[in-house]
Amino acid sequence: MRLALAERSVRGDRNRVSVRIDFQPIGRHVKGQQGQTLLQIAREAGVGIASLCGGRGVCGACRVQILEGSVRPPTSREREAFSAQELASGYRLACLIRPRGDLKVHIPPRTLTTEQRLQIEGQLRPADVAPAVRGIAVRLSQPTLTDLRADVTRLTDALRQEPGVEGATVDATLLRQLSDQLRHEEWAAIVGLRGHEVVSFHAADRGPLGLAVDLGTTKVAGYLLDLTTGETLGADAIMNPQIPYGEDVMARITYALQGVDGRDTLQQAIVEGLNHLAQGLCTRAGRRPDEVAEAVVVGNTAMHHLFLGLPVGQLGLSPYVPAVADALDVKARDLGLALAPGAYVHLLPNIAGFVGADHVAMLLATGLWEEEGNVLGLDIGTNTEVALKAGGRLLTCSTASGPAFEGAHIRFGMRAATGAIERVRLADSRVEVQTIGGAPAVGLCGSGILDAVAQLRRAEVLDRRGKMMAHPRTRQGEKGPEFVLVDAAESGVNEDITISRADVSQIQLAKGAMRAGVHILLQEAGLTEADLEGVVVAGAFGTYIDLGSAVTIGMLPPLPLDRFQQVGNAAGMGARLALISTVQRAKALDIARRAKYVELTNSDRFANEFARAMYLE
Amino acid sequence: MRLALAERSVRGDRNRVSVRIDFQPIGRHVKGQQGQTLLQIAREAGVGIASLCGGRGVCGACRVQILEGSVRPPTSREREAFSAQELASGYRLACLIRPRGDLKVHIPPRTLTTEQRLQIEGQLRPADVAPAVRGIAVRLSQPTLTDLRADVTRLTDALRQEPGVEGATVDATLLRQLSDQLRHEEWAAIVGLRGHEVVSFHAADRGPLGLAVDLGTTKVAGYLLDLTTGETLGADAIMNPQIPYGEDVMARITYALQGVDGRDTLQQAIVEGLNHLAQGLCTRAGRRPDEVAEAVVVGNTAMHHLFLGLPVGQLGLSPYVPAVADALDVKARDLGLALAPGAYVHLLPNIAGFVGADHVAMLLATGLWEEEGNVLGLDIGTNTEVALKAGGRLLTCSTASGPAFEGAHIRFGMRAATGAIERVRLADSRVEVQTIGGAPAVGLCGSGILDAVAQLRRAEVLDRRGKMMAHPRTRQGEKGPEFVLVDAAESGVNEDITISRADVSQIQLAKGAMRAGVHILLQEAGLTEADLEGVVVAGAFGTYIDLGSAVTIGMLPPLPLDRFQQVGNAAGMGARLALISTVQRAKALDIARRAKYVELTNSDRFANEFARAMYLE
Repeated sequence: MRLALAERSVRGDRNRVSVRIDFQPIGRHVKGQQGQTLLQIAREAGVGIASLCGGRGVCGACRVQILEGSVRPPTSREREAFSAQELASGYRLACLIRPRGDLKVHIPPRTLTTEQRLQIEGQLRPADVAPAVRGIAVRLSQPTLTDLRADVTRLTDALRQEPGVEGATVDATLLRQLSDQLRHEEWAAIVGLRGHEVVSFHAADRGPLGLAVDLGTTKVAGYLLDLTTGETLGADAIMNPQIPYGEDVMARITYALQGVDGRDTLQQAIVEGLNHLAQGLCTRAGRRPDEVAEAVVVGNTAMHHLFLGLPVGQLGLSPYVPAVADALDVKARDLGLALAPGAYVHLLPNIAGFVGADHVAMLLATGLWEEEGNVLGLDIGTNTEVALKAGGRLLTCSTASGPAFEGAHIRFGMRAATGAIERVRLADSRVEVQTIGGAPAVGLCGSGILDAVAQLRRAEVLDRRGKMMAHPRTRQGEKGPEFVLVDAAESGVNEDITISRADVSQIQLAKGAMRAGVHILLQEAGLTEADLEGVVVAGAFGTYIDLGSAVTIGMLPPLPLDRFQQVGNAAGMGARLALISTVQRAKALDIARRAKYVELTNSDRFANEFARAMYLE
Repeated sequence: MRLALAERSVRGDRNRVSVRIDFQPIGRHVKGQQGQTLLQIAREAGVGIASLCGGRGVCGACRVQILEGSVRPPTSREREAFSAQELASGYRLACLIRPRGDLKVHIPPRTLTTEQRLQIEGQLRPADVAPAVRGIAVRLSQPTLTDLRADVTRLTDALRQEPGVEGATVDATLLRQLSDQLRHEEWAAIVGLRGHEVVSFHAADRGPLGLAVDLGTTKVAGYLLDLTTGETLGADAIMNPQIPYGEDVMARITYALQGVDGRDTLQQAIVEGLNHLAQGLCTRAGRRPDEVAEAVVVGNTAMHHLFLGLPVGQLGLSPYVPAVADALDVKARDLGLALAPGAYVHLLPNIAGFVGADHVAMLLATGLWEEEGNVLGLDIGTNTEVALKAGGRLLTCSTASGPAFEGAHIRFGMRAATGAIERVRLADSRVEVQTIGGAPAVGLCGSGILDAVAQLRRAEVLDRRGKMMAHPRTRQGEKGPEFVLVDAAESGVNEDITISRADVSQIQLAKGAMRAGVHILLQEAGLTEADLEGVVVAGAFGTYIDLGSAVTIGMLPPLPLDRFQQVGNAAGMGARLALISTVQRAKALDIARRAKYVELTNSDRFANEFARAMYLE
């Protein structure tokens, strides 16, 4: 038995057989290896298939339909995850299928992440390209009996001709490859120089790349940049692979404190996710992860600590101090990231236990901290950070808005993918919905949920407290009253798509926490909402919401709509700025130094404000 | 079956049972854990048991005798390694025995390394203590609701009060422990500061330690130092665990080039050995390896490269250039060394492919490079490096003397342990021998071999070419003529101890290579041996040899004996100097820059000189 296994593994390594997968509806023809799972093949090719459990057959998110080609009978897990009819139609879990021949595979809308709106766009503010790692072209003479200089000496002698570079050193891990690489490239190459340290080695026609990451509690956005030009070569996003261990920050801190391995498990999960993300970005750009000579990662303080493997116990207990607040430069390999041999990860500074480097990045990208007058900044996500620039002061706080805006805990909630309802209008008894891609509705994404609540409130189907009134389209559901948005006949899921009283409560909790934070900061500055000259709305969710709806339900202050500005994923933008410019890194330090953190959880005022802010206006 | 295994492993971890081992003849009573091998128990307690194969049951060097207590029957390997009579007397291999109860164990002289002369002494030249890592005492205030500074900010704010320290950073791996450690030590501690980086954390009554290592091809010497006082707390030596993969430098380079893992195997072997060495040194000093905040390692260029995992292909091919010649600072963890979380290993510079950092360390320790006049330096080992200071010039070369001086390839050769013949005198037909510890003779160590050859040459039992003449004590052995030094009745091994014609040849090859190198350097400088005002003899072997004997056989130049100076393990001394003083490190750089390397292998002159130098004078 052991012999048979050993033989198979040898055969698997040596004579791997290719399989071709035709992914529909996106029309990608992809090559994989026998032995890989369908999920692995998709990921390596940059085809986005949702997975929350990291391919362990647990979450059921990676459901696909096999259209052509033969696969093995369903496993017991698949028999649990699908109805008999679905199984007969070829539904399987992509993480459990290992294709033995060519397949044609349909990715259903709720599984497909490639076409989902990633909210990773956003204009880059002008910033001179001055990255920490510069690509320097070198051409060396080869060793002879009369020139016995060591390989590294040969390289550092050449670098001495660069202005300001005296006595360069080579990263210890890069050293292990350098002698062979120099000979392979026939002594002409580009090296990535960071200060006085050589961190990467490139062929003569390739410069160093950079990776910027916005590490959200729920979503992780990655950007691949050319460090020479500052150009963005690609962008992608994945769900945070830590989600199975806890949906919000507090749940993950609790998990990290359990057992001896909790912290390591979370650290390895996110690092593995980032390695996949980087691999996918590089593949699509025709490059390799070992060309990535520098990374910048921003996240809230807990994500920052969990990514670095830092202790989080003190983050979960009053007075909630971070282990580290300063900006950091850490070797990527020390974290398990597979980038260039000597690559560093730069982490922007944190402001406090619950106002992290992602908020600093947002302030950096929007320039909000340099604005004259009274300006509010909201970075809306599972945690929402609030900043108030008032006169010379910069105040910040954090509120636990929860993952409702990402569709979690909402009966028909989903990510912003094809078929998601993104706009809702209620006219008399008719409901008009707009879906992403114009496809039949399969669920509600965040902006759709917000619209629905606002429309129901305007039509007085909801009262101020969120109670649901009688209406031709309301009915008693299993868990209380619900409103039918789309009838089964018109939906893409063969059932009515509804929004319930319970769904509305989730939105009230989320927006109440956020609004209460705004009130506390204004009080701290001696201002009222009317004094606000501008409101910057950032973050994955904030980009696509209807501002009118947000004001209607009391999520945003009742101000003229032209005072609001939606800026997209500003944290990701800030990460990119810090990636291509050390000047921007210095500004980020300045922001973190100047920000004054206001702690909400110890405040009686906050509890009162929260209770009031739960009302729909 | 899998269940049973899992259970056993859990039990093994949780309820480890202690065993007591009484090691004789050294009288050490030592505690071990069930499941450990006798060799592991001995190593952890600092009891020196020889092992060449790293505990894999291959080399047979760790033979011991079980005097009391029960052990399992012999394995097939042990039945090969011992006679039936030895097995009946309790002989076993220490690496294969896992004691299940208390044992009394006899360590035979050839197995015992603890009492062997390690040649690790030698006076330390005066050097102001100015180590790279300074221990700084800090006392911090703990976080409160009005002082929310991050843990690291709290520490770096305190360090700001140290002169010259602005904006200290903390090593990324140390960061993972720092928050918990600060709380455990109640915010008062000593931190190891290297430049602006905090690399280690210590209780308030403990300062940082340092480890100096002389990484020889055959022997590895380690020294534990207190970095605050510069004091040496302990010294120890092990055989280089790479020996099973090749006895000399060229054999190891060949091994490193084989297969994909050759280089990694050698790197891991030496790192594992150094971890054992450090563990033993710390245990005996009542300290822990994670208190070691800095290490200095010196070795020849090949050992240097293999320790760092650098490519060695180019070292084995003309023009024999090193991958790296400059001094290096590498994180200990990047090499697999288990020291303080942020500890660095400093490597002194190499001069050339076959004149390494160990020779730089020797020149540093002896001050030879600063001498006026014409002075020769020899660092005798498996490779012998030769330096000639002549006027303003410093010339160096390397010769492959081989491991004969360490006792290898000599029929009765052994290391300098108890019972080794270290002195030989021939008077008429009587042979007088002196053994280490005055014990019955069991073999010949290097100085004894040299004496024997010199005495036989003086008595004309050997002619100039090394041919053995008739004598009452010569006889025909299995492999040619041999001379009986000690009769079986008086020896400790129940057989005659002899030196053969073949043994003499080994010595001729070794000393011939060395002497030829001396001649070439002198010719390069336009000098003759008579011009030498001093000869410094360093290295493990050089310390204990009789200078008269060495001159007699033509290993050393025929000069008055008062021109010679034996300085012990000067490379190890140099490593210690570089460990406690950055000023000494700067001097080492200067030495490497000034040294001119002379390549011997391309020289016809060398072949001629070598042939001549093989003669006994």
